[in-house]
Amino acid sequence: MKHLLSGIQTILMISKNKIKLIKSLAQKKFRQREQLFLVEGDKMVAEVLNSGFRVTDLFATPEFLNAHKPLTGRAENFHEAEAEEIKKASLLKTPQNCLALCRLQPPAELPAHFSGFALYLDGIQDPGNLGTIVRTCDWFGMDYLFCSPDTADVFSPKVIQASMGSFCRIKTIYIPFNELAEWAEQNQTPVYGTFLKGESLYDANLPGKALVVLGNEGRGIRSEVANTIRFKLSIPSFSKKKPGPESLNVALSAAIICSEFVKAVSIQNGSKG
Amino acid sequence: MKHLLSGIQTILMISKNKIKLIKSLAQKKFRQREQLFLVEGDKMVAEVLNSGFRVTDLFATPEFLNAHKPLTGRAENFHEAEAEEIKKASLLKTPQNCLALCRLQPPAELPAHFSGFALYLDGIQDPGNLGTIVRTCDWFGMDYLFCSPDTADVFSPKVIQASMGSFCRIKTIYIPFNELAEWAEQNQTPVYGTFLKGESLYDANLPGKALVVLGNEGRGIRSEVANTIRFKLSIPSFSKKKPGPESLNVALSAAIICSEFVKAVSIQNGSKG
Repeated sequence: MKHLLSGIQTILMISKNKIKLIKSLAQKKFRQREQLFLVEGDKMVAEVLNSGFRVTDLFATPEFLNAHKPLTGRAENFHEAEAEEIKKASLLKTPQNCLALCRLQPPAELPAHFSGFALYLDGIQDPGNLGTIVRTCDWFGMDYLFCSPDTADVFSPKVIQASMGSFCRIKTIYIPFNELAEWAEQNQTPVYGTFLKGESLYDANLPGKALVVLGNEGRGIRSEVANTIRFKLSIPSFSKKKPGPESLNVALSAAIICSEFVKAVSIQNGSKG
Repeated sequence: MKHLLSGIQTILMISKNKIKLIKSLAQKKFRQREQLFLVEGDKMVAEVLNSGFRVTDLFATPEFLNAHKPLTGRAENFHEAEAEEIKKASLLKTPQNCLALCRLQPPAELPAHFSGFALYLDGIQDPGNLGTIVRTCDWFGMDYLFCSPDTADVFSPKVIQASMGSFCRIKTIYIPFNELAEWAEQNQTPVYGTFLKGESLYDANLPGKALVVLGNEGRGIRSEVANTIRFKLSIPSFSKKKPGPESLNVALSAAIICSEFVKAVSIQNGSKG
């Protein structure tokens, strides 16, 4: 195969050890041990190179390098690799032209002052749902996403992929609910929760700042948390069919909740998106 | 292994030919040829047995049979099978206790009269997105979902799974946009479309009935269709970051659109969910 930059015949390989390391990052314990996470896909890797995250190793085809020259210089180590080699290391079904190993950052701290709107995820398990919620938070201009310690890890490769680069812009903080509730109280932020039965989201008088709890895909908000939530909301079903739909997917609920709350916040703060 | 019903020792097998048939239903051409589609998962199969669809063959473990006795009688042919056999035939990563082969119904016709709200999907490709949109339509009490002929097939097993049983309650009609637009005009139904740039959904004066077009995941609404749409809406991003998020997932956009329109429809028709 032809080396595009120098014209020398070389095979641009990724070492077996690196492949093993990359594959291991599918698991949280190895991400923790190595303090690394994996980003794949040309667009996503370009985003992470542009972000505040440190990219320790970038594996990319000569084509990717040529197309993203100024950006690739931001990686601490750059390794040219054949597309076939990227494929060997990739966790994706349809691998692209690059892979980036990125340094985990120390967890963000709770902001001293809070205005606006944020979500608390109580045990969301599906990586696709979590990634989509991160993307939604980003769309609606939030800075933070709060999660219970048993929520899926935002640095899991599947979450990263589903977030479409939004993980670079949202600070995700894992925190037990009681600690966050205390912080919310100090910040005069009312805590809402979404339930199958509650006041209709469309009838409720939504405040100019709020924290909204969303529950796990199967069991909803756990009872210890639910018991302490004063404002119980639901997204009403308009179905007249019997039997009708049982529930709405949590990522969709999050999108509708964000839409309604951010609208309320922006109206009350006199700003518009 | 023990036969739970009769106490006789038998191995409850699924024939190789049936397994081949079941696997083939992952592909549209075989669904069309056999006029069958596949439903998996205990809850989903129970829903389809309860619906207007004809279940021609039900493969289930003795446990499923015992737990759903009155329902299983609705299948035209019932085959007991070991969990191991179900696993061999299944298209799921985590197979459950049953599989149902169901008869495709002739396509639904456009309703002569239309009130309320419906979506038109212009080339949605991802089965997960389509299934989730079907579920959303169900939640918001719609009867119909309109799709361009090149939208993913609602009877694909992945769409069926993502719809969580809602495919039983929503009539999905595949139709070229110009035919639907003509029908909408006859029904005095204004046609809206969602775009990256358009009037903010939150500022628009939404009508008591409407058809809303949502575009393909990558390219949005195709230009031939877009050119004929008078009311161009967008879900504004509230992000202040540069670069910010590029787009919102189409299933989430659909949920927010449905939420806003169904609210408007129900307020103007004086009913509430």
